[in-house]
Amino acid sequence: MRKNDVYFFERPAWVRTYSACVGKKEGEGPLGKCFDVVAGDDRFGQETWEQAERTMVQTSLNGAIQKARLQPGEIGCILGGDLLNQCVSTSYTVRDMGTRFFGLYGACSTMAESLILGAALVAGGMEDRVLCTASSHFCSAERQYRYPLQYGGQRTPTAQWTATASGSVLLTARQEGGRVAVTRAMAGRIFDPGVTDAANMGAAMAQAAFETLRGYFATTGEDPAAYDLIVTGDLAAVGRDVVLELAREEGIDFQGRYTDCGLLLYDREAQDVHAGGSGCGCSAAVLCGSILPDLERGRLRRVLFCGTGALLSPLTTSQGESIPGICHLVCLEVI
Amino acid sequence: MRKNDVYFFERPAWVRTYSACVGKKEGEGPLGKCFDVVAGDDRFGQETWEQAERTMVQTSLNGAIQKARLQPGEIGCILGGDLLNQCVSTSYTVRDMGTRFFGLYGACSTMAESLILGAALVAGGMEDRVLCTASSHFCSAERQYRYPLQYGGQRTPTAQWTATASGSVLLTARQEGGRVAVTRAMAGRIFDPGVTDAANMGAAMAQAAFETLRGYFATTGEDPAAYDLIVTGDLAAVGRDVVLELAREEGIDFQGRYTDCGLLLYDREAQDVHAGGSGCGCSAAVLCGSILPDLERGRLRRVLFCGTGALLSPLTTSQGESIPGICHLVCLEVI
Repeated sequence: MRKNDVYFFERPAWVRTYSACVGKKEGEGPLGKCFDVVAGDDRFGQETWEQAERTMVQTSLNGAIQKARLQPGEIGCILGGDLLNQCVSTSYTVRDMGTRFFGLYGACSTMAESLILGAALVAGGMEDRVLCTASSHFCSAERQYRYPLQYGGQRTPTAQWTATASGSVLLTARQEGGRVAVTRAMAGRIFDPGVTDAANMGAAMAQAAFETLRGYFATTGEDPAAYDLIVTGDLAAVGRDVVLELAREEGIDFQGRYTDCGLLLYDREAQDVHAGGSGCGCSAAVLCGSILPDLERGRLRRVLFCGTGALLSPLTTSQGESIPGICHLVCLEVI
Repeated sequence: MRKNDVYFFERPAWVRTYSACVGKKEGEGPLGKCFDVVAGDDRFGQETWEQAERTMVQTSLNGAIQKARLQPGEIGCILGGDLLNQCVSTSYTVRDMGTRFFGLYGACSTMAESLILGAALVAGGMEDRVLCTASSHFCSAERQYRYPLQYGGQRTPTAQWTATASGSVLLTARQEGGRVAVTRAMAGRIFDPGVTDAANMGAAMAQAAFETLRGYFATTGEDPAAYDLIVTGDLAAVGRDVVLELAREEGIDFQGRYTDCGLLLYDREAQDVHAGGSGCGCSAAVLCGSILPDLERGRLRRVLFCGTGALLSPLTTSQGESIPGICHLVCLEVI
């Protein structure tokens, strides 16, 4: 059922398994030891960055399937996407798996979007097992969105580092072992505070994140203290500060429970990532490498995972358009 | 519930209203009189092709909302996408409507994909009213996928004409007037017969269309005679012939009930569209301009609407990759 904008899943979708595959730099960060597979180098043994990204997606999808001791044919469908034009990293990978497929585009909010729609299919009795996935690769994304890597363009202080990372989550209708479930979710509305600097996406997405959180707390009647962790996808330092400022103005006190995956994935001082991490893979890998394991182990009990996306394109930026942001929220609980 | 790959909606999603907005050429085709709005010129009064496409999307979304005598705030969410990089035609349009949004990318299968997920959200009790939408614009798409229009590139005989068109369908949980419903649906698997010619997408998608139809008939135990119309999205002449050939080999007799939206939208002889129409807007506009009105009026009773998508990108083509196809099926019935 739904109340206002929030889906309440009477039959929750269980998180059965999850897997994260990341690049070398992500493996050298604070969460490096948490990931299932860390690449020796970001080419993943392939000839092109695009093939490398697909190998990474394949690795995280297969990881989630294998941990559940299933075959790809036992998965109902895959929901997911990536940052490359026409979402080819995901579709070319899924092509080789023979699974039904829903292609999604939520920019860096794709992991949360796939969890919402996947959980809705499971909760609605349409699917028994769905795989939700999202990925990004620094080298394929930078080339497409900004400059060829060889150009060596100078990055501004507000710029973020596109994560080389993929995360996949297997949701099931029956509790098949795990104890974490998607119990609620909220798809976001688009907010556009007028930011036109494509190197400052955290600021562009922050209002959407705040509005989703405000709407969620207003509908549920809860406050942030009801959660052990409230985490946005990739606002990084600039966007995180905007969310904190908006919350302060609104009288919402996060009580130290709020952070952002873009700040967790890298050591900002040592790893030269400027404002922090970004990309679909950023929140996907932090979810699968750190948040879900902490829920499974009981270190966390209730988490709001809020995927944030900047719905721009290089063309809209060059045409002078501002950057619309969206934030999709997923409530993960030990039940 | 689901049986094999087919969703059977016990609570069907009702088609309340629908609206199609198309370009000048589409207005001059055989279905020209069927569309709600036909542009005087394809710029839709805007400065850029991208803004023109958004105006067209806005027109079809507003058309569906206004026919239902609703305000945008009474719509639960919008599901949809388009062909432009990062799906900006849809997201920038939705930005101005303040509605919850799920961005989809299914290439030219997007209209069918949005109907499946929209119907699943309605059938699962998550949403009361969802708007499903898809669009494409010849000028914005050609520039992005092929050549600048000014270049005047020669088109091959297998090439298709990207429709300048947008269609939007309002699905509701309760029967609020209409008598057509989405009763079943089937998300597709990806098939790739190895076509590498990006000017022959009909052939690349035909196998996926055939496999979806074969799987659907095998699961339901029905044959094509159970439907008044079986229509694929944009296989056009080349892909349609491949589907007919594959069906013949398999012993499936369409009994003259099968055609393709890419053949319905234009007069191939008079309008110089080579193999026929394509683009997300092709099937979306034929659905909203012709198929749904014919169901509403009782000229058709049961229809299989099969959105077809070629999940390539210009980059994968230039890297020598073949073209994966997908086909999502939606069963529309007068009940």
